[in-house]
Amino acid sequence: MKDDGKVKKGLTRRNFLKSAGGAAAVAGLTTGGIALGASESRAAAGVMPRKWDETFDVVVIGSGFAGLAAAIEAKNAGASTVVIEKMMVHGGNSIINGGDFCAPDTKLQREAGVKDSPELMYNDMMKAGAYLNHPELVKTVAYGAKDALEWCENYLGAKFTRLNFHGGHSVKRANQTANASGSEVVNKEFAKAKSLGVVVHLRTKMERLIVDKNGRAVGVEVKKGYKFPDDKSGKTAFIKAKKAVILTSGGFSNDIALRQIEDPRLTDKFQSTNQPGATGEALLAACMAGAMDVQMDWIQLGPWTSPDEKGFGYVPLFCERLVGYGPMIDPAKGKRFFKETGNRKERADAIILIGHPVIIMGDSYSVNKQVFPRALEKAMESGAVKKFDTLEDVAKAYNIPVAAFLDEIKKWNGFVEKKKDSDFDCMIFPDAKPTTVPPFYAARLWPKVHHTMGGLVIDKNAQVFGFDLKPVKGLYAAGEVTGGVHGAVRLGGVAMADCIVFGRIAGKNAAKENAWG
Amino acid sequence: MKDDGKVKKGLTRRNFLKSAGGAAAVAGLTTGGIALGASESRAAAGVMPRKWDETFDVVVIGSGFAGLAAAIEAKNAGASTVVIEKMMVHGGNSIINGGDFCAPDTKLQREAGVKDSPELMYNDMMKAGAYLNHPELVKTVAYGAKDALEWCENYLGAKFTRLNFHGGHSVKRANQTANASGSEVVNKEFAKAKSLGVVVHLRTKMERLIVDKNGRAVGVEVKKGYKFPDDKSGKTAFIKAKKAVILTSGGFSNDIALRQIEDPRLTDKFQSTNQPGATGEALLAACMAGAMDVQMDWIQLGPWTSPDEKGFGYVPLFCERLVGYGPMIDPAKGKRFFKETGNRKERADAIILIGHPVIIMGDSYSVNKQVFPRALEKAMESGAVKKFDTLEDVAKAYNIPVAAFLDEIKKWNGFVEKKKDSDFDCMIFPDAKPTTVPPFYAARLWPKVHHTMGGLVIDKNAQVFGFDLKPVKGLYAAGEVTGGVHGAVRLGGVAMADCIVFGRIAGKNAAKENAWG
Repeated sequence: MKDDGKVKKGLTRRNFLKSAGGAAAVAGLTTGGIALGASESRAAAGVMPRKWDETFDVVVIGSGFAGLAAAIEAKNAGASTVVIEKMMVHGGNSIINGGDFCAPDTKLQREAGVKDSPELMYNDMMKAGAYLNHPELVKTVAYGAKDALEWCENYLGAKFTRLNFHGGHSVKRANQTANASGSEVVNKEFAKAKSLGVVVHLRTKMERLIVDKNGRAVGVEVKKGYKFPDDKSGKTAFIKAKKAVILTSGGFSNDIALRQIEDPRLTDKFQSTNQPGATGEALLAACMAGAMDVQMDWIQLGPWTSPDEKGFGYVPLFCERLVGYGPMIDPAKGKRFFKETGNRKERADAIILIGHPVIIMGDSYSVNKQVFPRALEKAMESGAVKKFDTLEDVAKAYNIPVAAFLDEIKKWNGFVEKKKDSDFDCMIFPDAKPTTVPPFYAARLWPKVHHTMGGLVIDKNAQVFGFDLKPVKGLYAAGEVTGGVHGAVRLGGVAMADCIVFGRIAGKNAAKENAWG
Repeated sequence: MKDDGKVKKGLTRRNFLKSAGGAAAVAGLTTGGIALGASESRAAAGVMPRKWDETFDVVVIGSGFAGLAAAIEAKNAGASTVVIEKMMVHGGNSIINGGDFCAPDTKLQREAGVKDSPELMYNDMMKAGAYLNHPELVKTVAYGAKDALEWCENYLGAKFTRLNFHGGHSVKRANQTANASGSEVVNKEFAKAKSLGVVVHLRTKMERLIVDKNGRAVGVEVKKGYKFPDDKSGKTAFIKAKKAVILTSGGFSNDIALRQIEDPRLTDKFQSTNQPGATGEALLAACMAGAMDVQMDWIQLGPWTSPDEKGFGYVPLFCERLVGYGPMIDPAKGKRFFKETGNRKERADAIILIGHPVIIMGDSYSVNKQVFPRALEKAMESGAVKKFDTLEDVAKAYNIPVAAFLDEIKKWNGFVEKKKDSDFDCMIFPDAKPTTVPPFYAARLWPKVHHTMGGLVIDKNAQVFGFDLKPVKGLYAAGEVTGGVHGAVRLGGVAMADCIVFGRIAGKNAAKENAWG
């Protein structure tokens, strides 16, 4: 991993032929001579099936936060609804989400004395997004998040029990589920959808979005009995959407071919935090039918992942609870190098610039106060988080120059006492204390691909737009498959708000469509 | 203009409803209720015309550097070729280009003793592009630029007479045309194309890319007798492409609706340097037919434009020749604020952060040595560049605090003497001298939209790819309508190299197609 980091900058240059070749092999891009591959699917969006195998009012693609919220609302509005999911289980990435739901002015905030407002959340999202965000979408999320959270609590029965902070937010506004996982919400959505009579087809993969001669989305071609990732598996079927198709198929963090077109640096040398099915074929199928994509090249790296565990892992839960309570250190120098409460992109870029994994650490007070016990236990089981009796032991374990490191911790402790970081302007919370109480805990950090900010163009009604800059009738989308909500950077804890807010809007609006009337 | 600058940061937030409404009005995005607009064109890419009005082997869309290079090569390879151009005159943006052609290891460089290489040019382009560039495309330009320049000289008879520097390049490598304008090249391309028998249809606008049932591009629907910008003008006709369609329709700097989807900040408050026809409808028509776009949200602002003249104007020619010879000053403080030789994005961002127009200035020595006399004369005619007898007069004219300004000029002069800028690391050229010799010349700078880095996905054969990640058979593209060559930032002087290199490749490959047996 250390090597991965060190050669990062050189990768693009030294391996550009290899790298381009690699992308080509996966993506089907030819790199020599005249390109010869097939493109028979190009005109296929407008080809109608001979017969439809099934018919529903609303067809939802994907079974994460957004898809199930859409299905529940569509069904409650009287529409017969099917959810198709290519994987063996429902939940997509949502089921492995960390369970933090950012919303302003919530009960947990009021209990904690945190002052917040939709306006402040809007401003935080726009600033992190480098003002590339589509303002009306951001406004829809920021002003709708509290209601969406209360829907999860009151209608679904999900429990939110503590308040967390994520870098880039002005205040603590992440309402954490009781089990510190998105599964608390998505499983309750799933149970609710089933109880309402929503049909769920697992192992069913969308292959094509079908549009009629008027450009209206009227159904999908799928593979039933699909076994991820075997593209030859499954049997073709056609599902008609009498009212609308809703795309909630998530992002493409695990689609190496697609992400290399958008950001060629992101070769297979970068792991992803996502479930394996986070590939972009449904999004691309929509674009093949004329739907417009936007800001696809903004691909977020999580700065809080560890090279010492697979996937998302538990270190992010350790790291994100500690920022503002403990220092982040470059082990080569024994010094801090960036503000720990910076946003995801700032921190990931800073770590990549360092060129090798860095260390996040805390003492007994901060870790026990901040880190969810099960997360700490799990992270320690895998060895990704380690426990030390002394600061010297920390230095020894990670090859940190001891004297410089001890000086830096002393300096950090001074900042914590004054509640002001004169070096990097890290936000230090009022209840933070100097890092002095053994045992100490530490983990290595190296970025992984975490979220794809870009996706389909939608308006505040979750209506998808096409490359003709007009609505694609009968097509809605919500969640990570859409673009414009987060701009350049998605802040931590905003995904659930985005998905529930826009998923519900998509479901309600889809049910109102009267296409075949 | 000063006001425009000052409210810039607040614009997105304060006006987000207004702004979103503005985009909606232009783009046809609805913002209230269920979207109702039409999308009949969606399935239309696959609809064949009843009859074709004209037939050519190769149909080229656009008559700038890239389009005419493509047409010449296609014709020379034996293909009957038509160029369609929606405006009244040929040349597109190329005809108002500044005439700088970056290429490594050229005759002018050798005469000036500048050491350069394709590898160095490649590295400069990748670094400026934040490594988002598609490496094989960058390589094609960097290693092909010298040959393309020599084709312009030896085959077309274009003259290049001096060597210039642009920010972000490691060395002087911009070979400037004899008339300091792209017209030197594009007019000679036009004459050559005509002499070879290439047919040119002016006032003919592409409305639709037509693909057959196999997904192959087979022709275009156009409006003949089109009067820009009247979308109701012109008469529909269909032009068949027996071999291939080549898109060289340029960027979308003047397409406010499209640029606001990609980067919502870029409202109509920002002017553009481009010709009025730099709108994105041909690019969007290709995407409607399944072609894939990439990195469209990277829209370049020129940091060297003046609010005191329209369009591109003459100040950029003044400013870009002075960087590395004269200082750039924030008039509110009388101080420098950023390295004058930084790349375009760095400088534009820095000026926007300042929030109001800044001053670029030089003395008699640097201006007379560096600035093309006609450019200086033209810029002074409009009043955008002013002449002063003393530094005090400069300060007075722009409301600069005099003492601070004089101190700063003294400091700058010290850096020039030492050939080292300790404040901002500006590259100071060996022949630069302290700014001391009256008269002094100065101009105000405020960014304008200049170039759209994103566009269609191509490979090194100029073959367009679709959202199925496969080649769109029969479709090639070159120049600003493509994406991936420049990544996040296009360096100055690289557009002509990009256009000529890829235009020629597209023309040659299009002529080799054998679609209809």
